[in-house]
Amino acid sequence: MDLPSLTFNPGPSKLSERTENDLREAVELKICEMSHRGNAFMEISREALAGLRSFFGVPESYKIFYTSSATEGMELTVRNLVENKSCHFTCGRFSELFTEISESLGKKTHRISAPWGLSPDFNPAEIPPDSELITITANETSTGVMCLNEDISRLRRACPRSLIAVDITSLAGMKTFQIADADVWLFSVQKGFGLPSGLGLMIVSPQAFLRSEELTHKGKNFAGLFTFEAMNRLIAYGGQTVCTPNMLGIYLLKKKLSRWNSSGGAIAKENETLKKAERLYKNISRHPRLKCFAQNPANRSVAVACIEGDPKDVAALHETAKAHGIQLGKGYGKLKETTFRLALFPAITENDLERLLNVLNT
Amino acid sequence: MDLPSLTFNPGPSKLSERTENDLREAVELKICEMSHRGNAFMEISREALAGLRSFFGVPESYKIFYTSSATEGMELTVRNLVENKSCHFTCGRFSELFTEISESLGKKTHRISAPWGLSPDFNPAEIPPDSELITITANETSTGVMCLNEDISRLRRACPRSLIAVDITSLAGMKTFQIADADVWLFSVQKGFGLPSGLGLMIVSPQAFLRSEELTHKGKNFAGLFTFEAMNRLIAYGGQTVCTPNMLGIYLLKKKLSRWNSSGGAIAKENETLKKAERLYKNISRHPRLKCFAQNPANRSVAVACIEGDPKDVAALHETAKAHGIQLGKGYGKLKETTFRLALFPAITENDLERLLNVLNT
Repeated sequence: MDLPSLTFNPGPSKLSERTENDLREAVELKICEMSHRGNAFMEISREALAGLRSFFGVPESYKIFYTSSATEGMELTVRNLVENKSCHFTCGRFSELFTEISESLGKKTHRISAPWGLSPDFNPAEIPPDSELITITANETSTGVMCLNEDISRLRRACPRSLIAVDITSLAGMKTFQIADADVWLFSVQKGFGLPSGLGLMIVSPQAFLRSEELTHKGKNFAGLFTFEAMNRLIAYGGQTVCTPNMLGIYLLKKKLSRWNSSGGAIAKENETLKKAERLYKNISRHPRLKCFAQNPANRSVAVACIEGDPKDVAALHETAKAHGIQLGKGYGKLKETTFRLALFPAITENDLERLLNVLNT
Repeated sequence: MDLPSLTFNPGPSKLSERTENDLREAVELKICEMSHRGNAFMEISREALAGLRSFFGVPESYKIFYTSSATEGMELTVRNLVENKSCHFTCGRFSELFTEISESLGKKTHRISAPWGLSPDFNPAEIPPDSELITITANETSTGVMCLNEDISRLRRACPRSLIAVDITSLAGMKTFQIADADVWLFSVQKGFGLPSGLGLMIVSPQAFLRSEELTHKGKNFAGLFTFEAMNRLIAYGGQTVCTPNMLGIYLLKKKLSRWNSSGGAIAKENETLKKAERLYKNISRHPRLKCFAQNPANRSVAVACIEGDPKDVAALHETAKAHGIQLGKGYGKLKETTFRLALFPAITENDLERLLNVLNT
């Protein structure tokens, strides 16, 4: 097994020292041994949900559900909301995945694609009017491209009849969002939230909830036990879930949100993240042999930077970093040789970034 | 929050001291920070799968997949294998759940039901010949009723054309099974395996795998990204999964199976469990006011005993136990007032059982 090192991998991410302590504490408090139907766990779950509601400024009319991963969240979005057709903005691997999920469930799909390295052109005129669902990947982690909140707002105004789902995996915990601008927001906790993998979240609008019920009545909701209505019944009762949930993950989420909300919430996290991203990108702009893969500076992800270089340089940097006890994130798929990725998640401290920059500049 | 106590809750279960140590070690080794696509994690996952294969004596031709819960395992079984109709042996809440999952996915279902407290009569003549899938709940945790391995074998011989799925949640880790007698075996790890909740497993026969492929070719496989073929491609490559898996859970599973396999494997666990169950049931049979809810001694679960008493006695026992730092499992659903449940999972030691018996006999 490799020795533990400081990881800039874009997920699973570094755990903060406080989360490591929470994990040790969870063992002492026997969190994993609680009844998931008992009052003590229901209280932990309710606090986690309330913390999340507060952190993201989720309107009261929106529901929050647990999933086991963002991938499951995408699947449940399609199963609950799409009868025939969905439309997908794609610009890399993870936005393509949302499309593939819809196709694999037998739906017709329409793609509006941008080349890797660019953000899609969020032009509402391109969206087929019969699209029941429009999907957006807020942070395309394969390319380091981030879309702008204004893009989502603009689509919301232009397409009042379609439901909009936004995958905020990688950005959640590092950015503020206008929750009312979309109908489903989904993510997993092993990225910005810096928690162990195996837990995801979905935030669901009243419009999406109604649509899921409508499909149920038509006999066209194929979410099985995981219809929004069924999930809501259990969540509303006491933060409970259809299956036995990842209780440890929910406990750690509660602890983290309690700290985050009492120290400035999402705005503070956004500012911290921006500061780190600016420092990194400034450094890269001065670097003689490296550059950002995302072409437009406005669309460069504050959460996961994708840095391009000569394959020899990239390989050498992985080695140098390793020698300094640092793990760089590998490039994704076809970008494996020519790029590497750097997560700037909240668990990455300014000191960690300092260590990284010293390596990049050697 | 309640103070930690010794729990006999039928899941999530007590963690053994060794698993608590594994959890602490996982923090030090930064297991949660590994890349889930990297070699180090793939090696951990491969070892966990090999450990499971060895423990259950899984034939080489069978696949093993990770899920996030047994409930998801049931759902994926139906989505991958049933086009039109499934047949379900029911005798309590969890066997009914398998039926409801199939119904919620739009399938026709046939129930062969036994009253709560009895095991179903596994008579093959009752099974409609057009049943594509037959489901069996090996341990009905709501009633403390366990089916016999011979029942499964007999059905296998009688129904060579139907696929058979066995839910072994609660019994896994405490009993040997003839894996070749069924096509899907599914469970989660927060019961007999004594690990944190949020991880499940499925063992899948070549016949079931072919059936899933056949439905895919017909456009009738609605497992989305989680078809057996897609799950197998990733597992075969390096123990990988469709979504980011519960890495911590997989690490703890690997550690546990390594210890179990080097100390007698499933046969040793079965013997230990039988010994504890005999001791408990002997004690109950002598008790002036308590009796087993499962009527037939042969069908009394070795894993989760369901004990019946006057509601006043049951309430008093919960209180007495609590005063002794022991948590009894509550009765399930309609049996809440008149029964309580006692898990005899491997993490429950002979000393723990001694403490429990002292309370029951006060």
